[in-house]
Amino acid sequence: MTTVTAYAAPAAKAPLERTTIERRAVGTHDLQIDISFVGVCHSDIHQVREGWGTAIFPMVPGHEIAGVVSAVGSGVTEFRAGDRVGVGCMVDSCRRCDNCRAGLEQYCAEGPTWTYNSVGKDGQPTYGGYAQQVVVDENYVVRIPDALPLDVAAPLLCAGITTYSPLRHWKAGPGTSVAVVGLGGLGHLGVKIAHRLGAEVTVLSQSLRKKDDGLRLGAHHYHATSDPRTFEDLAGRFDLILSTVSAPLDFGAYASMLRTDGSMVSLGLPEEPVHLVLQSVVGNRRSMSSSGIGGIAETQEMLDFCAAHGVAAEIELIRADEINDAYERVLASDVRYRFVIDTATL
Amino acid sequence: MTTVTAYAAPAAKAPLERTTIERRAVGTHDLQIDISFVGVCHSDIHQVREGWGTAIFPMVPGHEIAGVVSAVGSGVTEFRAGDRVGVGCMVDSCRRCDNCRAGLEQYCAEGPTWTYNSVGKDGQPTYGGYAQQVVVDENYVVRIPDALPLDVAAPLLCAGITTYSPLRHWKAGPGTSVAVVGLGGLGHLGVKIAHRLGAEVTVLSQSLRKKDDGLRLGAHHYHATSDPRTFEDLAGRFDLILSTVSAPLDFGAYASMLRTDGSMVSLGLPEEPVHLVLQSVVGNRRSMSSSGIGGIAETQEMLDFCAAHGVAAEIELIRADEINDAYERVLASDVRYRFVIDTATL
Repeated sequence: MTTVTAYAAPAAKAPLERTTIERRAVGTHDLQIDISFVGVCHSDIHQVREGWGTAIFPMVPGHEIAGVVSAVGSGVTEFRAGDRVGVGCMVDSCRRCDNCRAGLEQYCAEGPTWTYNSVGKDGQPTYGGYAQQVVVDENYVVRIPDALPLDVAAPLLCAGITTYSPLRHWKAGPGTSVAVVGLGGLGHLGVKIAHRLGAEVTVLSQSLRKKDDGLRLGAHHYHATSDPRTFEDLAGRFDLILSTVSAPLDFGAYASMLRTDGSMVSLGLPEEPVHLVLQSVVGNRRSMSSSGIGGIAETQEMLDFCAAHGVAAEIELIRADEINDAYERVLASDVRYRFVIDTATL
Repeated sequence: MTTVTAYAAPAAKAPLERTTIERRAVGTHDLQIDISFVGVCHSDIHQVREGWGTAIFPMVPGHEIAGVVSAVGSGVTEFRAGDRVGVGCMVDSCRRCDNCRAGLEQYCAEGPTWTYNSVGKDGQPTYGGYAQQVVVDENYVVRIPDALPLDVAAPLLCAGITTYSPLRHWKAGPGTSVAVVGLGGLGHLGVKIAHRLGAEVTVLSQSLRKKDDGLRLGAHHYHATSDPRTFEDLAGRFDLILSTVSAPLDFGAYASMLRTDGSMVSLGLPEEPVHLVLQSVVGNRRSMSSSGIGGIAETQEMLDFCAAHGVAAEIELIRADEINDAYERVLASDVRYRFVIDTATL
């Protein structure tokens, strides 16, 4: 066991405070990772505030972890000290179910062990990346290519894979028209990745406030959803609409912008039930679906893709003691486009 | 113009009566078809009773038409008198939009001209197949292979293609597990076709009343949805669930029986809005969609498939003057599995 400095919420909805936690001893297949940077994901806030249900406290959030291996277990063969690595939303899964064997560990039939606010196979609560170090089984660690600086790579571990995976699954590429709803942490990476995959990219945002940014990031078109004409003008336009917003949308109105056989995919997980009327969404063989992060192998594929195509997050680096203010700014959509904690400031 | 005997509803919700209608003169690209048999589809009743909105009266229903060509226009090259042919739900479409050009005329951007309760390009209302003859553009007529008797082929023109098309689109075949919800006119053909495509087929019906039939038709499993254990026992089982019922389902409960990446496809078009909760349906990258009939080329493909695999409808042949009683029996689910009118009795 090792005592490390961390930022934790002592109770639901409480501000985060500097504290210390214990990390387990490095097991046979474990890596000890010195965390360099950790992204601040909207889901950190959902969980600290128990928006998704009862949570485990104290809670150390953080599942966009970029760092350097500082020790390896005796059975580790693929990593060594000094390797640049990342950890995303999962640190374990059953490894036996159909989904795990298919590389879809995020849909593990027993539920994956999440990086924080979860209980590991050892019965101990997991603590996330707002900390100096983390110990993780090597099978749930990915390599960060040298071409990607660690600070701008960190958000790829959640926001990057959450957009990359559905873009690949629903075959975004040359000749396809993709809309990204919301230009925040997820959305800005969705735009960059869809652009690099060769798709025609449209941002659908509440206002035109971030239009210049959207076009700079790779969008070909940018429309305000506060303008009803957007829905008329873009009727039947898209093969794929990725919704990155956690507020409930009028899915019927958005689906009207899909082509025949188009797909509307929800990436956010709204806290409240989202009510739909079937007939308004799925006509013309359109479909409605969701997608959650991606598997471990696909996360590595995404990092390699981003390194090869110069894709990284746009970040605002913060000190650890700015985290509570950062949460308020995330809730106010006042971040371009991801806060990343420099863990040297812990 | 030709005067032909038909059965028509003079007004919404009125009983059907024997009457006469005018058919247009045979145009350059038209076929005149002597109708031999016409299936009775649940949607005939929806429309006669204005369940889908305001309709055109008098209404001659019937879009499962099997007959023999009796005259051809001067520009017709692919058909001749004596050919065994079928007409389904559509008799025209714009022929220019993306969907028409892709062979998806049923999703024509301008809306297809439906076989009845619609207005043709000539501005005249269309009348369906409860009649002695019909005149249809050759591009919207399909051939009925010799191996298929006309009476059992008729229901393939709507019920057959409505199940065949989604089974093909969602890739039912060896190694896939398909559930068919409801064992009626659509469902019994869905079972037969899915079985012949090589899928493992399960019927999900309210009760076990038709279990013997279901297994005889090709289902491997048969479960009652009135038993809550069905939903537990079959959790995560299916790649594809086809709902053939027009009553609103608890889509969340049904979706729980889908595997990761599985699809729930609604074929019926409930009269009332169907309310869903997004989160209950689309987790694990499951999708919700719909499908409506199929294109003209795919309808021909379906008929050829059915002829090659010995698939045809199970029917109860009726006289034309039994039609109003037949409607009541359809509404009471008291038909195994499709009423077909012998038009010799008109």
